[in-house]
Amino acid sequence: MTGERTLIHQIRRMAASSTNSAVKMGIGDDCAILRLKPGFELLVTTDLCLEGVHFRRSWHPPAAVGHRCLTRGLSDIAAMGGEPLACFLSLGLPADLPPAWMNGFLRGLLVLARRYKVQLAGGDVSSALQITADIVVTGQVPSGAAVRRSGANPGDRIYVTGSLGGSAATLKQLFAGKAVKPTKSNLHFYPTPRLEVGNYLRQSRLATAMIDISDGLSVDLRHVCDESGVASILISNKVPIAKNANLELALHGGEDYELLFTAPKRAKIPSQIAGVAITQIGEIRNRRDYSSAIQILGDNGKVSPLPQRGWEHFARQR
Amino acid sequence: MTGERTLIHQIRRMAASSTNSAVKMGIGDDCAILRLKPGFELLVTTDLCLEGVHFRRSWHPPAAVGHRCLTRGLSDIAAMGGEPLACFLSLGLPADLPPAWMNGFLRGLLVLARRYKVQLAGGDVSSALQITADIVVTGQVPSGAAVRRSGANPGDRIYVTGSLGGSAATLKQLFAGKAVKPTKSNLHFYPTPRLEVGNYLRQSRLATAMIDISDGLSVDLRHVCDESGVASILISNKVPIAKNANLELALHGGEDYELLFTAPKRAKIPSQIAGVAITQIGEIRNRRDYSSAIQILGDNGKVSPLPQRGWEHFARQR
Repeated sequence: MTGERTLIHQIRRMAASSTNSAVKMGIGDDCAILRLKPGFELLVTTDLCLEGVHFRRSWHPPAAVGHRCLTRGLSDIAAMGGEPLACFLSLGLPADLPPAWMNGFLRGLLVLARRYKVQLAGGDVSSALQITADIVVTGQVPSGAAVRRSGANPGDRIYVTGSLGGSAATLKQLFAGKAVKPTKSNLHFYPTPRLEVGNYLRQSRLATAMIDISDGLSVDLRHVCDESGVASILISNKVPIAKNANLELALHGGEDYELLFTAPKRAKIPSQIAGVAITQIGEIRNRRDYSSAIQILGDNGKVSPLPQRGWEHFARQR
Repeated sequence: MTGERTLIHQIRRMAASSTNSAVKMGIGDDCAILRLKPGFELLVTTDLCLEGVHFRRSWHPPAAVGHRCLTRGLSDIAAMGGEPLACFLSLGLPADLPPAWMNGFLRGLLVLARRYKVQLAGGDVSSALQITADIVVTGQVPSGAAVRRSGANPGDRIYVTGSLGGSAATLKQLFAGKAVKPTKSNLHFYPTPRLEVGNYLRQSRLATAMIDISDGLSVDLRHVCDESGVASILISNKVPIAKNANLELALHGGEDYELLFTAPKRAKIPSQIAGVAITQIGEIRNRRDYSSAIQILGDNGKVSPLPQRGWEHFARQR
C-alpha cells in the first residue's frame, strides 16, 4: 500500500509536465474530468502491454516500453483522424521491479505524451506477477468526421504510409539472439504514431476508410475489408518494404504503426504527407467476386489468395 | 491469435445487449466514438482487477468477479455525481483458463452494465500469467457540477451511505478458511454502486465533497481531507457497522463501495436517499488545529488520532 501510494504520488508529480487544456481535472479524484470542444465527439482506445507478450525486459529498455505503450493508443487515435487529449495508465508491477525501471518507463511514455500534448490524467496501480500496463487514450474529432474502417468502396485505391516490416525485422533479429542497439531511430523501439497524416486525411476528406497497421498488413487490411464488406487486391511489388525487412515481414509483420487507408480512384493523394511517404499498394474490389478477402498479385503475374497470419505475440513464439 | 479473435467476436456479440445512445460506435474500429450531451463534461476512471490480488478463483465465482470489476468503475462515477455511459475492458488471460470462467465473468459484468445502461464499447485481449481485467468507465456530468474530493469546509458534517465493514467481514471469513456462500445479497460478492445517491447529491447540490469508500473509511476520508486541506473528527459510535462486522472493519475494511460525502452544517440531509440509509458520522475541522488529519471520538469520551490502515490487497496477506 505504502509503495503504491508513493508511486502514485511520483506519477502525479511527473504527469504535471504533460498538460492539455481539455483536462479540467487529472490525477487526484475518483474520476478525471475532460471537456470536449463543442461540436466534437470523443474517441477512446485501450491497449494492453504485458511483459513477455508485448516486450521483454532483456530486449526493450524501459523508456522504449513506455514509448511503445503510448504509441499503440496514439496510433489508434491517428487512424480515426483524431486529436489526442489525455491518457490513463493502469499498472500491474512485480514486487521486485527496480524503481529505475519504472522511472525509465514513465519517462519514455511522458516524453512522447508531451510531444503530442497528451495529458496523463489518471490510472491505477497494483502488484502483479508480470509487468502489466494498460494504456487508455482519449481524443476528439469533429462530429461525424472520424475516418472509420467501414467506408471502403470497390474501385478505391489502397495506400500505406512509410514502409512496412521494419519492426518485425528487428524482432526477428532479437529472436535470433542478435544484439540490436535500441536507438531512437529504430522504429521497433521508438515507433512514430502518424497523427499528422491521420489528421490531414480527415481534414482533406480524402480517405474513405483508415486503420493503423499494428497486427500486420494482411490482418489489418482484412479488418477494413470485413467492416466495409469488400475484397481487395494487393500488388506485391508496390508494397514499401523497410530496410532489413522482406516482403513476408512487410505483409505479415506487426507493430509498424503505419496507417493504411483507402481513397477513391480519382482522389489526388500526395506522394508525401507531413514528410511521410505515401504509397499506393492495391485496390478495393467487390467481395462477391472473390473467394478470399485479400488477393495478391505476385511478380510472376499470378493472383493468389493472401492468408492472414499477422502478428504473433512473443509468448506464442517461446 | 485465433483464440483471441474468437473471444473478441464473442465479447462483441455479448456486448450488443448493453447499449447506450451516447455510444455512436462501439467495438469494431480503432477507437470507440462517444457523443456527450451539449453542456456536459466527460468523466473517466480506470480500475485494475487482478487474480490473487483483488479476487481468487477459489473464493469468487466468475460472475461475482465481473460484477465487482465493473462496480469499481461505476462507484467512481457515482462519487462524482455522474451518469455512466460506456465501459472498456482490457483482459489478460492465462492460456489454461476455462472458457466457462470467461463466460461467467462477462455475464456478471454485462448484467450489471445493462442495469445501469452502460455499454461495453471496446477493450483489448492478450495472454497473461494471471487473470487481469482493467475496466475503464466513462460518464458524463453537467459542466462544472461534478462533486469533487476537494470541496469540504471546516464545520461541514461527514456522512456515509449504507453500512461499512461488511465486505471486509466476509473477506476475513474467507481468509479464515470458512465457506461463504457467494449469494447475490452478500455485498462482498455483489456490491451495489451508489449511482442514484451520487446523482441525487449532485442534483440537489447538498454535498460539498464526495468519494467512494473503496480502500476503507480511514484511507478514503484522508483523501478528502488532503484534497480539501482540512482535518476531520469521527464519532465512533455513529459509524454504521454492517452485520457480522465490527468497528475495526468498518473503519479500515475496504470494498464496501458506499459513498462518503460532506455537507454544510445547516444542509438538510434526508435519512434515506434512493432507499439507502444516510448516517452522519463526524465533522470537518480546520487542519491547522490538529496534528493528525483524522481524529476519532471513542466511547470513552477520549479523542485520539486515527491511523490510515485501509484495504490491504490479498497478495500482501498471503
